Amino acid sequence: MTIRVVPGTANGALVAAVAAVLGTEPAPCEVERFPDGEMRPAVAEMRGDDVYVVQPTGPRVNEHLVELLLLVDACRRAGADRVTAVIPYFGYARQDRRGRAGEAVGARVAADALAGVGADRLVVVDPHTSTLEAMCAMPVEMLTAVPVLAAALQPVVAEAAVVVAPDLGAVKLAERYASLLRRPVAVVRKSRVSGGLVEAHDLVGDVGGRPAVIIDDMITTGATIEAATRVVVAHGGAPEIVVAATHGLLVGGAIDRLSALGLQRLVVTDTVATPEATPLEVCSIADVLADAIRRLYRGEPLDDLLVHG
Amino acid sequence: MTIRVVPGTANGALVAAVAAVLGTEPAPCEVERFPDGEMRPAVAEMRGDDVYVVQPTGPRVNEHLVELLLLVDACRRAGADRVTAVIPYFGYARQDRRGRAGEAVGARVAADALAGVGADRLVVVDPHTSTLEAMCAMPVEMLTAVPVLAAALQPVVAEAAVVVAPDLGAVKLAERYASLLRRPVAVVRKSRVSGGLVEAHDLVGDVGGRPAVIIDDMITTGATIEAATRVVVAHGGAPEIVVAATHGLLVGGAIDRLSALGLQRLVVTDTVATPEATPLEVCSIADVLADAIRRLYRGEPLDDLLVHG
Amino acid sequence: MTIRVVPGTANGALVAAVAAVLGTEPAPCEVERFPDGEMRPAVAEMRGDDVYVVQPTGPRVNEHLVELLLLVDACRRAGADRVTAVIPYFGYARQDRRGRAGEAVGARVAADALAGVGADRLVVVDPHTSTLEAMCAMPVEMLTAVPVLAAALQPVVAEAAVVVAPDLGAVKLAERYASLLRRPVAVVRKSRVSGGLVEAHDLVGDVGGRPAVIIDDMITTGATIEAATRVVVAHGGAPEIVVAATHGLLVGGAIDRLSALGLQRLVVTDTVATPEATPLEVCSIADVLADAIRRLYRGEPLDDLLVHG
Amino acid sequence: MTIRVVPGTANGALVAAVAAVLGTEPAPCEVERFPDGEMRPAVAEMRGDDVYVVQPTGPRVNEHLVELLLLVDACRRAGADRVTAVIPYFGYARQDRRGRAGEAVGARVAADALAGVGADRLVVVDPHTSTLEAMCAMPVEMLTAVPVLAAALQPVVAEAAVVVAPDLGAVKLAERYASLLRRPVAVVRKSRVSGGLVEAHDLVGDVGGRPAVIIDDMITTGATIEAATRVVVAHGGAPEIVVAATHGLLVGGAIDRLSALGLQRLVVTDTVATPEATPLEVCSIADVLADAIRRLYRGEPLDDLLVHG
Amino acid sequence: MTIRVVPGTANGALVAAVAAVLGTEPAPCEVERFPDGEMRPAVAEMRGDDVYVVQPTGPRVNEHLVELLLLVDACRRAGADRVTAVIPYFGYARQDRRGRAGEAVGARVAADALAGVGADRLVVVDPHTSTLEAMCAMPVEMLTAVPVLAAALQPVVAEAAVVVAPDLGAVKLAERYASLLRRPVAVVRKSRVSGGLVEAHDLVGDVGGRPAVIIDDMITTGATIEAATRVVVAHGGAPEIVVAATHGLLVGGAIDRLSALGLQRLVVTDTVATPEATPLEVCSIADVLADAIRRLYRGEPLDDLLVHG
Amino acid sequence: MTIRVVPGTANGALVAAVAAVLGTEPAPCEVERFPDGEMRPAVAEMRGDDVYVVQPTGPRVNEHLVELLLLVDACRRAGADRVTAVIPYFGYARQDRRGRAGEAVGARVAADALAGVGADRLVVVDPHTSTLEAMCAMPVEMLTAVPVLAAALQPVVAEAAVVVAPDLGAVKLAERYASLLRRPVAVVRKSRVSGGLVEAHDLVGDVGGRPAVIIDDMITTGATIEAATRVVVAHGGAPEIVVAATHGLLVGGAIDRLSALGLQRLVVTDTVATPEATPLEVCSIADVLADAIRRLYRGEPLDDLLVHG
Repeated sequence: MTIRVVPGTANGALVAAVAAVLGTEPAPCEVERFPDGEMRPAVAEMRGDDVYVVQPTGPRVNEHLVELLLLVDACRRAGADRVTAVIPYFGYARQDRRGRAGEAVGARVAADALAGVGADRLVVVDPHTSTLEAMCAMPVEMLTAVPVLAAALQPVVAEAAVVVAPDLGAVKLAERYASLLRRPVAVVRKSRVSGGLVEAHDLVGDVGGRPAVIIDDMITTGATIEAATRVVVAHGGAPEIVVAATHGLLVGGAIDRLSALGLQRLVVTDTVATPEATPLEVCSIADVLADAIRRLYRGEPLDDLLVHG
Repeated sequence: MTIRVVPGTANGALVAAVAAVLGTEPAPCEVERFPDGEMRPAVAEMRGDDVYVVQPTGPRVNEHLVELLLLVDACRRAGADRVTAVIPYFGYARQDRRGRAGEAVGARVAADALAGVGADRLVVVDPHTSTLEAMCAMPVEMLTAVPVLAAALQPVVAEAAVVVAPDLGAVKLAERYASLLRRPVAVVRKSRVSGGLVEAHDLVGDVGGRPAVIIDDMITTGATIEAATRVVVAHGGAPEIVVAATHGLLVGGAIDRLSALGLQRLVVTDTVATPEATPLEVCSIADVLADAIRRLYRGEPLDDLLVHG
Repeated sequence: MTIRVVPGTANGALVAAVAAVLGTEPAPCEVERFPDGEMRPAVAEMRGDDVYVVQPTGPRVNEHLVELLLLVDACRRAGADRVTAVIPYFGYARQDRRGRAGEAVGARVAADALAGVGADRLVVVDPHTSTLEAMCAMPVEMLTAVPVLAAALQPVVAEAAVVVAPDLGAVKLAERYASLLRRPVAVVRKSRVSGGLVEAHDLVGDVGGRPAVIIDDMITTGATIEAATRVVVAHGGAPEIVVAATHGLLVGGAIDRLSALGLQRLVVTDTVATPEATPLEVCSIADVLADAIRRLYRGEPLDDLLVHG
Repeated sequence: MTIRVVPGTANGALVAAVAAVLGTEPAPCEVERFPDGEMRPAVAEMRGDDVYVVQPTGPRVNEHLVELLLLVDACRRAGADRVTAVIPYFGYARQDRRGRAGEAVGARVAADALAGVGADRLVVVDPHTSTLEAMCAMPVEMLTAVPVLAAALQPVVAEAAVVVAPDLGAVKLAERYASLLRRPVAVVRKSRVSGGLVEAHDLVGDVGGRPAVIIDDMITTGATIEAATRVVVAHGGAPEIVVAATHGLLVGGAIDRLSALGLQRLVVTDTVATPEATPLEVCSIADVLADAIRRLYRGEPLDDLLVHG
Repeated sequence: MTIRVVPGTANGALVAAVAAVLGTEPAPCEVERFPDGEMRPAVAEMRGDDVYVVQPTGPRVNEHLVELLLLVDACRRAGADRVTAVIPYFGYARQDRRGRAGEAVGARVAADALAGVGADRLVVVDPHTSTLEAMCAMPVEMLTAVPVLAAALQPVVAEAAVVVAPDLGAVKLAERYASLLRRPVAVVRKSRVSGGLVEAHDLVGDVGGRPAVIIDDMITTGATIEAATRVVVAHGGAPEIVVAATHGLLVGGAIDRLSALGLQRLVVTDTVATPEATPLEVCSIADVLADAIRRLYRGEPLDDLLVHG
Repeated sequence: MTIRVVPGTANGALVAAVAAVLGTEPAPCEVERFPDGEMRPAVAEMRGDDVYVVQPTGPRVNEHLVELLLLVDACRRAGADRVTAVIPYFGYARQDRRGRAGEAVGARVAADALAGVGADRLVVVDPHTSTLEAMCAMPVEMLTAVPVLAAALQPVVAEAAVVVAPDLGAVKLAERYASLLRRPVAVVRKSRVSGGLVEAHDLVGDVGGRPAVIIDDMITTGATIEAATRVVVAHGGAPEIVVAATHGLLVGGAIDRLSALGLQRLVVTDTVATPEATPLEVCSIADVLADAIRRLYRGEPLDDLLVHG
């Protein structure tokens, strides 16, 4: 069985990097786009191969999701023996339950569509919903970027620093950082005021005079990070604030919002394509993905790469 | 069982028109859009209802397709007894087979995704692939806009006119127009020259001195219509050319291209939303859709509304 | 369509109560048990009926789960038009992800088995995993017992009381109590020390001199409650401690452990059958379940009964 | 993985030929027939093998289809690692849509039945419906016999010959012949007169004084060929008419009807078993099928063997 | 919901009789047969109706099975709310397990094909395999013709008669007759001698001087009945032998074989169409089928019509 | 592909024995049990392996069935290439049809649940329902312990012995013993008297003065064996009675009941765990299971190990 890395268009640089680590080339794959917005992928035949389609479903999420479905379908028809969808960022993961009776459950919709085209296995990184694997019909390997990011932060994080979770949902993630960095954890608690606006209002733990390492799984508009930064400062945190997240979606003016905060460092991975000229530092997840793919291909254990529940 | 028409956002005017014909209001439905491009629909609970989600999947096709999947999922969870997806224009229908071994079959991907969210029945209008119903797990009612368009053309089409199919794929459609208009048919034959460019080169039938009614199922960039017009003119057709099509996608400069042709009339339906200030005449398909929905709701036969194979 | 409430054996008193509220009798149903442990249910034929099988899958969870599968199968074969599995306590919900690569995802296994026998819809109460509905192929209505429990607590909770979440996973639940009781929230944070033992170590929020209302979704062995109680006391909480939880599984010496704590009150619901002679106060969930069933039967909205995500 | 060619009884000579080309023997397989018409196949165990069941579903189509289903079922139970159904002629392909609301879609029924017994992949030759692969749950390789037939015709077709499509549905096929034979195309157009009878009435293209090569995908009763021949003659075609088709079903008096036409040659392939004493020339498709099977077994590309959409 | 009885062609007289009992007409349904053996059914639209397709799958079993699949597909697409396949004789039921590793399991193949076209429920009569319902994905109502046949036999069976099972597989059936007729049971035991031939060799129970009532579920070639008759005679049974069976397939010379036996009476039902001029007495099953259909339509219990396990 | 034998907890000794015969160790596997009765299995990763989960579903059947489902799920997620569930005793097999309209079909429920977790193949031994394979979506290999038991009996069975089937359902099994032991068969016939009690009443065949070998597929409470013994004695059988059965469930006082019979020998296999201090002789089925697993792993024929239909 030959290994084959099929590049979606959502993050070509990452696919190239993954293939390079694996000592191979991305498989020939063209995705034609028609004037009406339809896409038509074409891959080389891959009969009997062990295929990894790499495509994060970050913005523009619907384009990237449908492209991924078409790619998996194309690979299956082209004779792939096994198709693993490697989705470094899994979009619609926030829709993991209904907020009210008339809503959709987008995470399940995406999972079922992937099952419908015959994906045999998924590989994701730090999914927003920690129970993603229970929502999918096929096995899901949930990798984590925390060791990569923690290693990048280690040299620059002061002895006195504290890891800050910007909301309760991020506490487990913060503890994973804290364990690797051997630093304590503090937590920002948000509360909803009438009208539905989110307001950060409290901070649990001691940040007084200490540099904060604010972490999250993803940065979308930057509003959560901005709020957390303000809370840290209001509680007397030191001005040298570092921010780290696995997924840097950075939409809706996020770059400007974050630039205005005067952060010491802002570190994300390349699970989604990032703009070139930004204040971001980007740690590549390519080694982790390539390692996982290599092990899956060789039939070796993945456990130490996985998020632990 | 209450009837309920759920409005997707792809063509709000059409849904409103359909609901009006049915003497009802579109069901409450909001589709929230997040800065990262994700959508979240919310409908009112509809327990036990007979639900019709109306959403063409024209440009931007991927946005509209995913929105449709989410809407059907939301309706099912909200208690709908039966969910019919009314898709006046069914995108990805051209991908009804592989052009080469490594391609996807997009029509099947879309059909399976709709099955995955639990759509019980589809209603479409003049689908590009005439065998669409064989590709879908659920029953499909294939309606036609030809009677509506033919009725609009009848008063303005000269006695001597000839119906022109712009390529072989449109001949059956042309014959349906010709039968209603009681006019003969002519056919443009295209051939592919080396390099893959399409060139119109021949015309079967007599158009000399006669006004042509060029018809097609859909107009995308207008290139096919433009070529057919040139062939008609080159074969001595009269200058009063009329063009009619069910789906007016009109992307990639189509409006400009068609405007330059000096057409007498350009008629489409509103299966997809059309720009306001255009040379288009738009015949509404709302009555046909409402009629089909009413019959499905009441359990009456649809046969006379259907495309006949 | 006739409504029919089918009684599983896991909690006969609850089914009887639900049926009584609905003004009906539990449907005839016998579950034979053979000497080798196999069960064989027999229901009356119920052709065209709208059927609600009521069976929590608390201890002995495997017995109750298999019985539920057999009951749903029996109802489907007996002609039920629609089978809703009402599972007040959904066992295996804690297995909503793998802790390491070689584990099972029990929640999904249970969900798929229920889909396999043809359950059309699930109704659950305060499931341990908040994304349960995304794990199930059929729609899931996630009801909550918090209003019932909060109403029971309201008269006896002091003005100065504080709602205490015994761990981070319970914070959202605590906030729902706090909102109804109009009291503040405090949170116990647990950390894992080497060897895997759980040790409560911190308390966020002010409990000094104030009566605590410790809440949780379920009480299993009582160890979490015991630890939280100790933390509250250690932080100067008032001795009048109240404990409330939706599901009182109370296994492994839980009664003794909780009795030793000198709690002022210990309140649970009857989602699972509770021992008769205990210090427990039991608020019945029967009204809530009956209300949900009645609305599903009548096709009325359920939203205000649901857990909000 | 061992390759194994399982012979259905519909065309034993073809299976033997395919196996011979592959340098193997047909796998042991007996199909018992009972007095009441039931069949029971028995194959040798084939654990871990790569299995190709070869069975066209031509007349008697229902017998051959059910036998194929039973054979695939038998192979799967006998341990086959992968079962490819090689269906040189795919029956019920004409039922690819409803002609009116109350009809069946036989192509989909056949496709779903094959999916139900667990066929992993289909291989077909020149299917009547060009979108067959979109109707099947499993991948379908659509091979073509045109190069084989064109090679057989090449030496005997006059320089001045013209390829004739007997109806519009055959134009694409005619163009594939024309491209290989480097001859022009003419098209017979049929129209339906009242009463539903088919009457050939027109011919597009120049056949005056030229030998015609009338082609079609299949010859059933020969009526279409007969009509086309008459049109060709009526338009002044030369008397040396050649007819070629992939599938020679030849039922309902076809042999007599065709013999009366005085054709120069009548060429078909052996996708379905042909009578021995006929005016037919039979070009074997065995090499093409064996080539496709060999490539599938070895994991080599098939693209150049496929019908191109 | 309107009731609708759709007539397959396998036994038109039975469908007419069933419809008559129900006070209705068979639904309009034509099954076109093409010269190549393909069938195409067309039914009237039946939106929202409760549909019963009546078609035994006796000889020619494959024709009748495929016709049934097409009919169910047609009804589903024509808008039926529920499709019940009424299969008075269920062919391929003898293939309920493999006789050796390489065989098919035809009963499951048929059951899965019926599930594939969307049959919601099956109704069968005295199926050859008593566990048929466990092989089908949808619920199966297993009716019995024994009361009908026993009632017909009652007046003509002598006081001293004994019910004879012609092999062990028929003992339970014999006991059901015996219970209704209040007669004892005797059993013929067959043993296989080398070479695979079946030879009747023993008789358990006392038939000396008594008239035998030999019963079976089905008569195919009559060989089993012939052998049993010989055994009965050899053991001194009285010459007035009566034979009864639910299904009279009567193929392979059965009529001649049975006529030669000099039976007093030979009684079957009309589950399959029987030849007109035969020594058979035919008891109609139409009342039983109509009764079952009426109850299913009305939502009434069927239990007393069912075979009891 | 590495072979891997995963030990369920239902019969650890058997799994160890199977693994030993195969020259391997049981795969690392722990099944944690929580105080509320939930189980959580954890296996080592087994990427690309050929996995055999060995777990009979005897008493306590529900515990063992759910454990098996969780184990298969765990193996699939842990990367197994193929998961075969080896179920030496298949519980719920007696529920292979409804006894009345309101019952469940437990065998199908169990089969579907196993399909739901993705078991690729089943291996069972002498299942109670002989058509089990037709009830399961995946292939089932039905092994038999009769040769093992017959070999153990051969030396101790007297020349004059007769094999006795304790009821009609066991006759085919008895014939398989008789064929191997070269002894004749006798049959006990039970009849139901009013009130539903089972009473043995008759014996077909000659046991006078001869030692009986009473056989059955399983011994549950021993009541059937006890009754058969009495009948044998009453018919003059010799006092040296031997009893043999594949499955020794032995619940509900079976040991005491059987001990009181003064049997010469009582032989079962170890398909289910048997108590240590019993009068039982246990013939291990480990060699048969290991042989079957080895052949499946190596791709060799199994036919001579199978029950023949």
